Amino acid sequence: MSALAVDGGRLLADLDALSAIGRRGRGVERIAFGPDDVRAREWLAERLEEAGLEARIDGIGNVHGRWPSPRAVLAGSHVDSVARGGRLDGALGVVAALEAARALRAAGACDAGVGLDVVAFADEEGTFRGTLGSRAFCGEVDDDELAAAGDAAGRSLGDALAAAGWAGRPLERLDPARHVAYLELHIEQGPVLDRAGERLGVVTGIVGMRRFEVVFEGRADHAGTTPPQLRRDAGAAAVRYATAFLDAVARAGGPESVGNVGAVRLWPGAGNVVPERASVLVEYRDRAPERLRALDAAVEPLAAAAAAQARVEVAVTEVVRMAGVAMDPELVAALGRAAEACGAPARTMPSGAGHDAMVVGRHLPSGMLFAPSIGGRSHCEEEETDPADLVLAARTLATAIAAVADRAAHGAQEGGTACASS
Amino acid sequence: MSALAVDGGRLLADLDALSAIGRRGRGVERIAFGPDDVRAREWLAERLEEAGLEARIDGIGNVHGRWPSPRAVLAGSHVDSVARGGRLDGALGVVAALEAARALRAAGACDAGVGLDVVAFADEEGTFRGTLGSRAFCGEVDDDELAAAGDAAGRSLGDALAAAGWAGRPLERLDPARHVAYLELHIEQGPVLDRAGERLGVVTGIVGMRRFEVVFEGRADHAGTTPPQLRRDAGAAAVRYATAFLDAVARAGGPESVGNVGAVRLWPGAGNVVPERASVLVEYRDRAPERLRALDAAVEPLAAAAAAQARVEVAVTEVVRMAGVAMDPELVAALGRAAEACGAPARTMPSGAGHDAMVVGRHLPSGMLFAPSIGGRSHCEEEETDPADLVLAARTLATAIAAVADRAAHGAQEGGTACASS
Repeated sequence: MSALAVDGGRLLADLDALSAIGRRGRGVERIAFGPDDVRAREWLAERLEEAGLEARIDGIGNVHGRWPSPRAVLAGSHVDSVARGGRLDGALGVVAALEAARALRAAGACDAGVGLDVVAFADEEGTFRGTLGSRAFCGEVDDDELAAAGDAAGRSLGDALAAAGWAGRPLERLDPARHVAYLELHIEQGPVLDRAGERLGVVTGIVGMRRFEVVFEGRADHAGTTPPQLRRDAGAAAVRYATAFLDAVARAGGPESVGNVGAVRLWPGAGNVVPERASVLVEYRDRAPERLRALDAAVEPLAAAAAAQARVEVAVTEVVRMAGVAMDPELVAALGRAAEACGAPARTMPSGAGHDAMVVGRHLPSGMLFAPSIGGRSHCEEEETDPADLVLAARTLATAIAAVADRAAHGAQEGGTACASS
Repeated sequence: MSALAVDGGRLLADLDALSAIGRRGRGVERIAFGPDDVRAREWLAERLEEAGLEARIDGIGNVHGRWPSPRAVLAGSHVDSVARGGRLDGALGVVAALEAARALRAAGACDAGVGLDVVAFADEEGTFRGTLGSRAFCGEVDDDELAAAGDAAGRSLGDALAAAGWAGRPLERLDPARHVAYLELHIEQGPVLDRAGERLGVVTGIVGMRRFEVVFEGRADHAGTTPPQLRRDAGAAAVRYATAFLDAVARAGGPESVGNVGAVRLWPGAGNVVPERASVLVEYRDRAPERLRALDAAVEPLAAAAAAQARVEVAVTEVVRMAGVAMDPELVAALGRAAEACGAPARTMPSGAGHDAMVVGRHLPSGMLFAPSIGGRSHCEEEETDPADLVLAARTLATAIAAVADRAAHGAQEGGTACASS
């Protein structure tokens, strides 16, 4: 495999142009279906048309650029952001897929019937619903969910789509007869590559995740006059449970297990009142289903033990349950070969964060490529990647797309050349 | 010592009458210097005059009923309440002292020059400043504190005193030549007597107290993508510190040590974000200065250890520091003898809550008597005591007052009889 040439200057210029839409400091704020998200998607549709793709924005806000071919590799990510987010999260994968389309066309490649469709999924960040666009594309969203979806301010998804001008448009859908694979380039949003001084990561799988709210109910008492043995201390139960949870993740989890105590609240929250109520928000992630199950089995007994020790009641509520998904082994291999062809061997690693590839990967062979996040920072204006690494990642993505399209067009012979040489 | 007769029906009727002022459900709300607190104090002043005392409300809102004698035992408590408070906290001690004055007078007692002054201190509950009235009475409040005092709504103490009609009046002050002792009957505000089935408690000392806010500062990171060893997790430090603090109180504290984790907060408080900041509010109390010092010595090292483990910064701020105070041993003994004379041996016990006797005890030999709190409840409308126990406690207080006055008048001969027999 040889590397496909991409125009690094044009890639960075596109990123700059997209960053100008919704700019906040060094970052951006493009809330799903808001004016800047709409402008970003219209800007993208224009660029896709210029690149020779047939572009449209569908009824859920997904932007599709269709290659004039009967089959296609699908590549992209999203352009919406969190509030006060960074300029690369999602945007990099979309702009890199756009640049790959230009590079493939410039190389005269992909004439064998397998082209490149570029996609920017809607509301990946979950202003209304997490990974809404990719789930709708894959047929995972029903009318009930659409009708119920609203943002934190209580605005309905229907109103937001109408305001964006997209309500009532038809939905583009995943088409097994057309789409041969999904490839997504994304920033790592973590510190692993940056700390290791590595420039590319190939994702082996996206971790499964659980989030639980654990609520302890005891009795408020005067903290000076009530002896310890007469208390029903919900606060003590909460901090002891949170500590035991962290210990359990460290002890029972595997090398890729991560846990977090993200929130603790005690009521009434006064220094001299034994807390009558306390809540703890915990989550854990792992790529391996068996390790997730081991942690699943620990959550409730640990909560029950902490409650019993403090003589309080406890209720454990599952807030989020996401199954992990493995990336397609052949695409993992293809991305690894593309990285080597581009001169930078990639680390294979799990993704601790969810992405559109997690959704699409449930329906279509999928692969993900990571670019380093400087300092591991993301979802903030400090989110940044060395420009040389951005160009390297885009070149690797384009090279892999070319190889995957070529293999799909010509069969699965190992070692096929890319669509074009640089 | 023989018990002094009090009129139990009149005592309960007085409590009912006082409870009607500011009634809220089964409890009361008499916020310091508010209209119902003013009415309660005016009501009390009238009752004191009827009982033959010279009554006045002074420039800080303290109600004084002066026995026509050169010296006097001082007895009382307070009539202000917390918001949505109970009907007995403070009120019991004031009404019982009023009834004791009547009983002493009816028995023709205290003609030997040592009478009974009744007091209702202002703002014990700290709407403006905690134990404001007793501290002013003892000379602990200077003009700077008076000028700075305000309530949670920002109203100045000066405005509140003016609205109450008491601004500019002279202050009554503790007079060593007049006051021979201070005795205060109060509800326990804790569950110990009620659980033990005991009807009276004699307080050996009021515990010292420390309250600290411990703030950990780390770094926000994505909880899915940041490996544990690269985190600076302020939340983990907070819950581990809170757990270690509770363990330290249980391990290093004495039998009367109590600790509390009253509040925990994590920022930003999202499930998928490693907390960048966390605060823990801890307090502990003990009657013994050496045990308080042992816990003092543990607070910062435990916080530093938790911070080091999580690679975060920590700042420990002392929010409250109250020295404990021992009750006068002779008054403890006198209250114990009075209890036995009234047929109900008393438990000796510390007070885990602060009271006016904690302030006055720094300046004058003081003693405190506890009546049981049903279920340990206080500062709520469920605050209640069996009426028979209220009468028993009032009789015990009156009997002790008579004995103390008698001893002060006739010297300290052991076993002196009460002013009058029942």
